[in-house]
Amino acid sequence: MTSTLLDIDEVLLMGPGPSAIYPSVYEALAAPTLGHLDAQFIGIMDAIKGQLRDLFRTKNMLTLPMSGTGSAGMETCFVNLVEQGDRVLVLINGVFGKRMADVAQRLGAAVTAVEFEWGTEVTVDRVKEELAKAPYDIVAVVHAETSTGVINPVAEIGKLVKPMGALYIVDTVTSLGGIEVSVDDWGIDAVYSGTQKCLSCPPGLSPASFSDRALEKIRGRSKTVPNWYLDLSLISSYWDGAKRSYHHTAPINMLYALHQSLTEILSEGLENAWARHRTNHEALVAGIEKLGLAMFVSPHARLPMLNAVAVPDGVDEARVRSILRNEHKIEIGAGLGSLAGKIWRVGLMGYTARPENVQRFLSALESSLRAAA
Amino acid sequence: MTSTLLDIDEVLLMGPGPSAIYPSVYEALAAPTLGHLDAQFIGIMDAIKGQLRDLFRTKNMLTLPMSGTGSAGMETCFVNLVEQGDRVLVLINGVFGKRMADVAQRLGAAVTAVEFEWGTEVTVDRVKEELAKAPYDIVAVVHAETSTGVINPVAEIGKLVKPMGALYIVDTVTSLGGIEVSVDDWGIDAVYSGTQKCLSCPPGLSPASFSDRALEKIRGRSKTVPNWYLDLSLISSYWDGAKRSYHHTAPINMLYALHQSLTEILSEGLENAWARHRTNHEALVAGIEKLGLAMFVSPHARLPMLNAVAVPDGVDEARVRSILRNEHKIEIGAGLGSLAGKIWRVGLMGYTARPENVQRFLSALESSLRAAA
Repeated sequence: MTSTLLDIDEVLLMGPGPSAIYPSVYEALAAPTLGHLDAQFIGIMDAIKGQLRDLFRTKNMLTLPMSGTGSAGMETCFVNLVEQGDRVLVLINGVFGKRMADVAQRLGAAVTAVEFEWGTEVTVDRVKEELAKAPYDIVAVVHAETSTGVINPVAEIGKLVKPMGALYIVDTVTSLGGIEVSVDDWGIDAVYSGTQKCLSCPPGLSPASFSDRALEKIRGRSKTVPNWYLDLSLISSYWDGAKRSYHHTAPINMLYALHQSLTEILSEGLENAWARHRTNHEALVAGIEKLGLAMFVSPHARLPMLNAVAVPDGVDEARVRSILRNEHKIEIGAGLGSLAGKIWRVGLMGYTARPENVQRFLSALESSLRAAA
Repeated sequence: MTSTLLDIDEVLLMGPGPSAIYPSVYEALAAPTLGHLDAQFIGIMDAIKGQLRDLFRTKNMLTLPMSGTGSAGMETCFVNLVEQGDRVLVLINGVFGKRMADVAQRLGAAVTAVEFEWGTEVTVDRVKEELAKAPYDIVAVVHAETSTGVINPVAEIGKLVKPMGALYIVDTVTSLGGIEVSVDDWGIDAVYSGTQKCLSCPPGLSPASFSDRALEKIRGRSKTVPNWYLDLSLISSYWDGAKRSYHHTAPINMLYALHQSLTEILSEGLENAWARHRTNHEALVAGIEKLGLAMFVSPHARLPMLNAVAVPDGVDEARVRSILRNEHKIEIGAGLGSLAGKIWRVGLMGYTARPENVQRFLSALESSLRAAA
């Protein structure tokens, strides 16, 4: 081991992800590497598919982790479902909604971007209005906007999208495992997540799931998917086929880690995990307000796992983060895009969402604010 | 830890990759996860860039691991360098050359595929002939064709490509770390590799490097790269930019592992590692021939790290592999594509390439052949 790696700090990860890793997941990461076509490894792949179906609350056959980070999951959904000229409605209230529009545009979609103020939620009425104006092939929205800490009404929007015949793409990178995500009930056709948020696994994989309607669209494409690495028609024969044909070499040890983190979450129970996120979020908000600080997002639109705290006037926000990191070994996130300098992003994701971490953070924040003053 | 993970066999990986992992790399995998914008982590990123430059023997600024497996590296090279209608010459003598042609075609390139018999090498004369016929924007070839065990004359082809002004893309997935790869001397403009071959790190990352000429082409593109996840102009501002702007969340722990495996290789010394691959390959070939078996590839075109052994008439090749895996805990690979059933692929990659593994394999193979008869 080089000194660089030996010297790594044990940092309490309370930013927008990665989150604290389960100890058992670190162990799983270091389990002996198997071949990607080994029967024992294929057993683990099958177990992961079942676990992900439970987590996404779906019966979708094609439910699998893509071999890339959450953004590769986003790319997968769009590159497989968008054909040249498709009309795509993207609902935007933060960085990740904007990214969806960028991804779709690069693929030749005719993108309509409806923007909402950052820090507020996408509203069902505005979506209804837009859907009445023009037909769409695809509607896309982010469930938990990591850049602002806002939850969007994915279930309600789904009720509008399905009757119109459009496909519904939802980003659940930050929500999955921390709040309800019900793919089948909500009429979602393509969904992706990340491992480094509420799953408390290192970054590197993107769990994803596709409805039969999505698969139909893929099968009926007039042109092959312009991305070999993420082409689901090829990948599914490795993950689902009777023969398990080689596509690319799966990231074996990362998949061990994902399997283990899903085992942790499902043995806690999904509802219990959601309740734990909620409780710790409430304790955090109470503590933040007791310190005289204010939350950036209105109570009804707040995510429990990503807490945007308004930076008070006159406070050097970068200095506070740096004291937290260096003196207290706690990472929190800065604002992104137009919110840079205006908010801190405090994550309570997965294994991070525990009372001792909330307390440790609040007292460290109090002392850091004093030190930075 | 679930029983599935506890029960994982310790398999000696002697297939076409993944290879045996260095013990220190398993340790590195399980080091505490840091944030992807953490100064300590950025220090590790910088160290990796320097290590990869040493490994690729290049001064290229843009030298970095892409967040996906080797095939994502292939996709990266083509999606960034190919524009609609570009004339791409692909030299094919196995599965991975074919894959290059498929990737390029999907991106709208005008692909000319020149095919050579599988098991033989790409010949310089044939390439010269082809280059005299028509101008090309890009020429692409696989250095070590993992599907057949053949080495291609990458340096010599480079001498033909450069004067023509074409960009030269080379796949070094299986060669890097096991035989010489000299990116600058050989005039390579875009190169990619994988972590799970001679680097003896789990699969999941693709080390890659791009010349200034490649960057010029990317900067001068008429259309943005139709792949947000792999867009080098965005990714380079995270890996190289003064500000280190967030693009996607890097696969932190996999990068620790890569850093550690590069430390192992570079402290052994590149030339020593190549010599070790050569020596163990020679011992393997001697043992194979002593068993009355024959190598599939002619001596001058053989790769040391990927040994294609001809399956003798009347032998049930799948049964031999299954006995090796189940009784002896050794994985070797089957033939791919048109070589399915005709060859075994025996890997001696990275940490696998040690005398004790060669001996263990040869005696296990002898007894498996007897048991399968």
